[in-house]
Amino acid sequence: MRVDHLFRNARLATMAGPGLGLVEDGVIATGDGKIVFAGARAEMPAVEPAQETDCEGRWITPGLIDCHTHLVYGGDRAREFELRLEGASYEEIARAGGGIVSTVKATRAATTADLTRETLPRLDALIAEGVTTVEIKSGYGLNTETETRQLVAARGLGKLRDVGVVTTFLGAHALPAEAEGDKDRYIDLVCHEMLPAIAAAGLADAVDAFCEGIAFSTEQTARVFAAAKRHGLPVKLHADQLSNLHGARLAAEHGALSADHLEYTDEDGAARMAAAGTVAVLLPGAFYFIRETKVPPVDLFRKSGTAIALATDSNPGSSPLTSPLITMNMGATLFRLTVEECLAGFTRNAAKALGRADIGTLEAGKRADLAIWSIERPAELVYRIGFNPLHARHRGA
Amino acid sequence: MRVDHLFRNARLATMAGPGLGLVEDGVIATGDGKIVFAGARAEMPAVEPAQETDCEGRWITPGLIDCHTHLVYGGDRAREFELRLEGASYEEIARAGGGIVSTVKATRAATTADLTRETLPRLDALIAEGVTTVEIKSGYGLNTETETRQLVAARGLGKLRDVGVVTTFLGAHALPAEAEGDKDRYIDLVCHEMLPAIAAAGLADAVDAFCEGIAFSTEQTARVFAAAKRHGLPVKLHADQLSNLHGARLAAEHGALSADHLEYTDEDGAARMAAAGTVAVLLPGAFYFIRETKVPPVDLFRKSGTAIALATDSNPGSSPLTSPLITMNMGATLFRLTVEECLAGFTRNAAKALGRADIGTLEAGKRADLAIWSIERPAELVYRIGFNPLHARHRGA
Ligand SMILES: [Zn+2]
Ligand SMILES: [Zn+2]
Repeated sequence: MRVDHLFRNARLATMAGPGLGLVEDGVIATGDGKIVFAGARAEMPAVEPAQETDCEGRWITPGLIDCHTHLVYGGDRAREFELRLEGASYEEIARAGGGIVSTVKATRAATTADLTRETLPRLDALIAEGVTTVEIKSGYGLNTETETRQLVAARGLGKLRDVGVVTTFLGAHALPAEAEGDKDRYIDLVCHEMLPAIAAAGLADAVDAFCEGIAFSTEQTARVFAAAKRHGLPVKLHADQLSNLHGARLAAEHGALSADHLEYTDEDGAARMAAAGTVAVLLPGAFYFIRETKVPPVDLFRKSGTAIALATDSNPGSSPLTSPLITMNMGATLFRLTVEECLAGFTRNAAKALGRADIGTLEAGKRADLAIWSIERPAELVYRIGFNPLHARHRGA
Repeated sequence: MRVDHLFRNARLATMAGPGLGLVEDGVIATGDGKIVFAGARAEMPAVEPAQETDCEGRWITPGLIDCHTHLVYGGDRAREFELRLEGASYEEIARAGGGIVSTVKATRAATTADLTRETLPRLDALIAEGVTTVEIKSGYGLNTETETRQLVAARGLGKLRDVGVVTTFLGAHALPAEAEGDKDRYIDLVCHEMLPAIAAAGLADAVDAFCEGIAFSTEQTARVFAAAKRHGLPVKLHADQLSNLHGARLAAEHGALSADHLEYTDEDGAARMAAAGTVAVLLPGAFYFIRETKVPPVDLFRKSGTAIALATDSNPGSSPLTSPLITMNMGATLFRLTVEECLAGFTRNAAKALGRADIGTLEAGKRADLAIWSIERPAELVYRIGFNPLHARHRGA
């Protein structure tokens, strides 16, 4: 059999189960950008590769998938961070132009080229740690024009770099100042102007909302979900981060791909998510950065069989984090996830959270998205902090 | 005036005060490996530089100083980390060869070349984030031969890479199995065999000990300090990490360069440290990794005027961390240090913790150890997580 590329002399964590799907003496053959064979050398069919790579015993995992980011935005919030540490009150920070308002202002003022230029170093940081697919949300525009521009920039990043970009429309992220406190009217705008325009332009792969006391109610969220359904788009939800509004249940009821954050989710919410196949996307970077103390109910997710994913939640306000490896360490250290859960969280289950059956494991038929690591065991990817052992990344087509 | 190198079009955080010592339109001129001038362009004397670098508005800080690491060791503890997350008991982990015992075993089995090869990637990770000076402790040999080998490897690293290495003898780190529980006899060995041999070979710049219930008593520590004094070596101490044995006071009484960890230090300890000029070296990586909840008394250190430094504490058991930038973020996020305190902690005060007057600030007469950053304000170095904006590093001589 002719194949394009043979990766030999490798150890594999296929993430296809059981456990990490370990193969000690492994090979991967690819053809037409897909995996043709991934498994033990002894079981490999006879192949004639056009190209060969000797992996010298290194480990191969599926390319990492960061399934929840707000990577595209203008400005940063370093000054606000600095002021807060000096004891400034929220009022003082707001007066100094801080908070999400400042990011919305900077994002609205930025051109597509500005957004692209500012985002690229963050994207490159993810890629440098083996990311081959990244989800990017809008949500700092809060008007049709700027939400569109964010998503155009996001799509464009996937052409500038060899990385898959999945886009999510998050118009229902926060209430802009010009809405003058009228959340219902703003949600009308999201459902009847922003979403139709963005869906018509093919700019969103899914629709997200922020369901929380400081953001939108479950009723308002349900209206966004209904609008998404009318446009044939899957949904996901920022749910139960700061309080239990039963966002997990709402997400499950709407067959959401994922519910994300989930610090305050209860047993009923976890059970409904499991039944609906809604992935629990945990975001330890935000938990760490805002010094949250309530840990998401990992045991309930385990008990109910809810798939658990992990993501950076990369954003300027609550998680200025661009490292999947540190996120995995935080998942283990702060949430007591196992090594297998952390790795599944950035591969198999992250793919599920994006509704993508073609990535996330090393199996025949999947895209040949690979990360090759200079390590002696997969646990090192979770154990170390601030150390990047990526040797190479390979992306299929 | 002829100078070797002119760095122009830069913004400076000289760390020489007040505050960060900000200079918006700055230049640095170097000669013979030292800073000849660092300050505002308008105040620069007329110079004829042999070499010029246009910094294009980037920020220059002093090269970072990691003043507390255990960087040289054999093996790693990723398997132990994995087992613990799977719920293994300490007994099961010990049976699987875990704990510090496993690091001592692997370090004793390693040649100098092995230790060098295994440490280099960790050292390179520090250097990649702008470190120009690193302290490295022994303490995984626990016999004369292996402690010597660790320090020989540490010194050698400073020849393989363009980085300053400061070595610390930490024979009193833990009790080896062959001591059969007799701590006093082991401290005799440390004081009368190990330390004299290491001092005679010129392998240590300072002497450290671990004063804690699980390690050595204040009386045993005092004996180590007395031995160090006989050999003309300054001392430092792992103090008050897990309980208050008044290690801070002990360190101050002996005029220690630093006392490190200090989660349980009280007001008296902080005041004595300030009076003695003993630096408080805080290690948020270990605090994070072992999920400690007692935060060191930062307000007491501020009130008493104790200088605060920060370090990675890079080690395989309680802080597998090789990123000064993440350490600074942890200092801010977990300990509520200000941006200025975090940056001083890896520059000016880290130099003080090593007894080094020649590094740590950008001032005429200091070594020309520089880190050049692609950032818009120094706070970004502390604010971001898992993002490395280092543009270049320059080291004097
Ligand atoms: Zn988010
Ligand atoms: Zn230490």
